[in-house]
Parts: sequence; C-alpha cells; structure tokens
Amino acid sequence: MELGKMSGTLYGLGLGPGDPDLLTRKAARLISEAQVVAYPALAGSPSFARQIAAQFIPPDAMEITMDIPMTVERAPAQKAYDKNAGDIRAHLVEGRDVVVLCEGDPLFFGSFMYLYARLRDEFPTEIVPGVTSITACAATAGLPLAARNERVTILPAPNDDAALAEGLAHADTLILMKVGRHLSRVRDAITKSGRLDQAVYIERASTPKERVLPLADAPEVAPYFSMILVVKGADPWL
Amino acid sequence: MELGKMSGTLYGLGLGPGDPDLLTRKAARLISEAQVVAYPALAGSPSFARQIAAQFIPPDAMEITMDIPMTVERAPAQKAYDKNAGDIRAHLVEGRDVVVLCEGDPLFFGSFMYLYARLRDEFPTEIVPGVTSITACAATAGLPLAARNERVTILPAPNDDAALAEGLAHADTLILMKVGRHLSRVRDAITKSGRLDQAVYIERASTPKERVLPLADAPEVAPYFSMILVVKGADPWL
Repeated sequence: MELGKMSGTLYGLGLGPGDPDLLTRKAARLISEAQVVAYPALAGSPSFARQIAAQFIPPDAMEITMDIPMTVERAPAQKAYDKNAGDIRAHLVEGRDVVVLCEGDPLFFGSFMYLYARLRDEFPTEIVPGVTSITACAATAGLPLAARNERVTILPAPNDDAALAEGLAHADTLILMKVGRHLSRVRDAITKSGRLDQAVYIERASTPKERVLPLADAPEVAPYFSMILVVKGADPWL
Repeated sequence: MELGKMSGTLYGLGLGPGDPDLLTRKAARLISEAQVVAYPALAGSPSFARQIAAQFIPPDAMEITMDIPMTVERAPAQKAYDKNAGDIRAHLVEGRDVVVLCEGDPLFFGSFMYLYARLRDEFPTEIVPGVTSITACAATAGLPLAARNERVTILPAPNDDAALAEGLAHADTLILMKVGRHLSRVRDAITKSGRLDQAVYIERASTPKERVLPLADAPEVAPYFSMILVVKGADPWL
C-alpha cells in the first residue's frame, strides 16, 4: 500500500433467500454504490447471489466471480478461498471498497466467513446481516417456528442418524437444512420418531418456483435449496 | 361483511433487529403504503416496533397499539390477543389491509403468531420475513455462527439447568436468547461446561447502544434485548 493511501473496506452483505425484495435497504444501497462486487459461483454454475442482486449492481462496477469447488475434501475449497481472498485484497490495498454478495446471511453457513477469516485482520470490515432461508421457509409455509421457551435445533441433513434422532428427541422445533439427496433417510428418521405429521417440506422459498408440501408427500430427491421444518407448534393456537 | 365487499389482507412484517436500514425493501414499501398499522407495546412501554418503523409510517395511517401484558400465566396475554385480533378484524372486514409490525421476524418468538392463529382462517394473509436478532448479533460481534455440518441450538435462557447442560454438550453453536435476569445462572452453566472462552455477550445489536463483550466480562443483569453466542468456531480459520 502506498504511504498515506487509505485501504478499502470489505463488506459482507446478506441478500436474503432469493426474492430481491427481501434485501435489506442497507444491502441494496451498498450494492448500488459499489465499485467492486464479488460473488460465489458453485462449481461452475451461474451465481445465484449475483442473480438475486442483479438489478442493484451498477453497470460500471468491476465484478469478481469466485469459483467454489463443491468437494468433501477441504484442500480444493481452501485453495479457492486463498485465491479469491487474493483477488479481493488487490482491490482493498488500492483503496477500493469490495462488496461480497452472500445468499441468506454472511455468517450463517455461508462461504463469506472463509474470506472474512483471511482478510479481517488486514482491512476494515462490515457485515450486513440478511434474512435467512429459515424464516423465509417459515413465512412461505405459514408456520410459526417457535414461541415462549421452546428449544430450536438447526441440523444440516448430512449429519448421521444418531444426531438426527437426538435432535428429534430434544428439540421442540427441528430445522433440517441442506436436505438434497438426504431426503429419504431424513424422512425415515422423522417417521421413526413419530413426528412425521409435524414435518413440512419447503423448496426455493421466496422465489417464483417455491413449493410447500407435507413431508409425507415430498419427492424422493430434493434440490439443494430445500428445507424440512419439524414443529411442535401448538402454542400460538392455545 | 357487506355482500361483494372484498376483505382486507393481514400482513405480518418482520422489521429486523432495530436499525431501520435493516428493514427489507418489501417491509419498508408495505408500511409506506399502509392504511392501518398495528404494533405491540409491552406492558405499557413505548413500542420498539413502532420506533424502528417510524420513518415509513404515513402521517394519515390509522394506528393500533396492542398492549401485551408480560406475565407468566397464559390467560392475561390470551385475553389481550383476543382483543387485538378483534380490533384488527374490524378493519379487515371493512376491506382495509392491516400491516402488523414485528420486531425481528414475525414467526420466530414473536407475538404476531398469536394474532395470525386467530385471523388466518378468515382473511388473506401474507408474512414478510425479517432479519432476526441472531444474525444481527453475529454481525455485530463479527462471529461466524456455523459452517458445514455444524449443529446449532437456540435456547431461551429461562430453560432449566438440565436443558442448558444438554445444549452445551450437543451443540457446536449454542444461541441463548431472552437472557435478561438469567445471565448469572447461564454464565455459571457455561463455565461449568468448559466453554466460557467461546462465549460472547451482545446487547442491543444494530442500535446506537449496541455492545459486545466476552461473556466473562458481561454485567450481572442484562437487558431484555441481549444474547449470548457460544461458538465452537474453528472452521473458517482452517
């Protein structure tokens, strides 16, 4: 960095679940004023984050597409995050702010936290929280999630059967994320626990393709953007 | 309802954690076009929800203040919800839309769900999800909440010691809401579990009075709008 030159600020912006109308006012404004916009693209697919934010990105903004490999091993993703952090660093040291677009919320199961870990000690940072897919799914399903002192557990579906059984036994509300190809196994565990009648399946909440079904009627294989809500749920009707 | 008269729509709008800039674009627009705006006021205090949304409420909108008694017994609150639902119903049957302002998200530990349970079968409804205090607190603290397949449990602090110990043992990330006067007891449980060094205390996130402290340094008594995050948290730094 040149002497006296101010470095740029790294922004992590939550975009919410998919509907551009569910961006916060702050996120929409920061994108519309951005010089540099970065966004993840999973394994070569078009970037869903860019798609959500498209109408706010200035035509003259510089764009960074961050390819993120989808692998179980850590090394390929770590290498990608190193490269992406390097691309972003090059702008920050030149004094340009960089806005990173994040589906949902930046610090909740997102890839932004890996960039944040690599850059937060070198540059000013600001996180703008976003609407998560959890409350978006609840809104789509019209399903009160939790009331009073109820316990809520959020469990990625790849967790093993013991973790599923434990969550089903202890949580008043169990939220299963990243359902995808785990749907059939998860449904079996929920059926076994006796809570199938409390379980709702939601895919692509807040988008034109959103769909809500009783879990009993859900397809065998779910898309990546799908969720199961298992909700005790009596309280608001008391 | 008169013959042929269309009834109004009931909207439950999440306002987010407190900063008016964290309203979604959709919530801000619906408020600015509202004919009737309803909001909770806890036990005679000024309404925090109205305060968050104040700049968007049209000067000529009709306003309904919903007094909610804060009691452990169910009956007084149920009676209040019956009355509030009645006030809202009177507008809906006349064909006026009613916008209900909700701190955070409408279906996540909020009072809106009690109105929703009383009115959803009679009128068209729409829920607009909001940013919850959980991701707002994480943003304020700069604390990645969960990654990959980590398990997250959300536990209202009034839960008993056994529930606290269970959450601390099984969850990678434990989120304690409604801390208030339970802070000291909760801190003891966290200390006993060996996770005190992972625990961060946040109050009034996203407002000018926000404050972040290691839990070890937090005050003995916390305000109602406070939270503790206990986060394993190594993943993004790997």
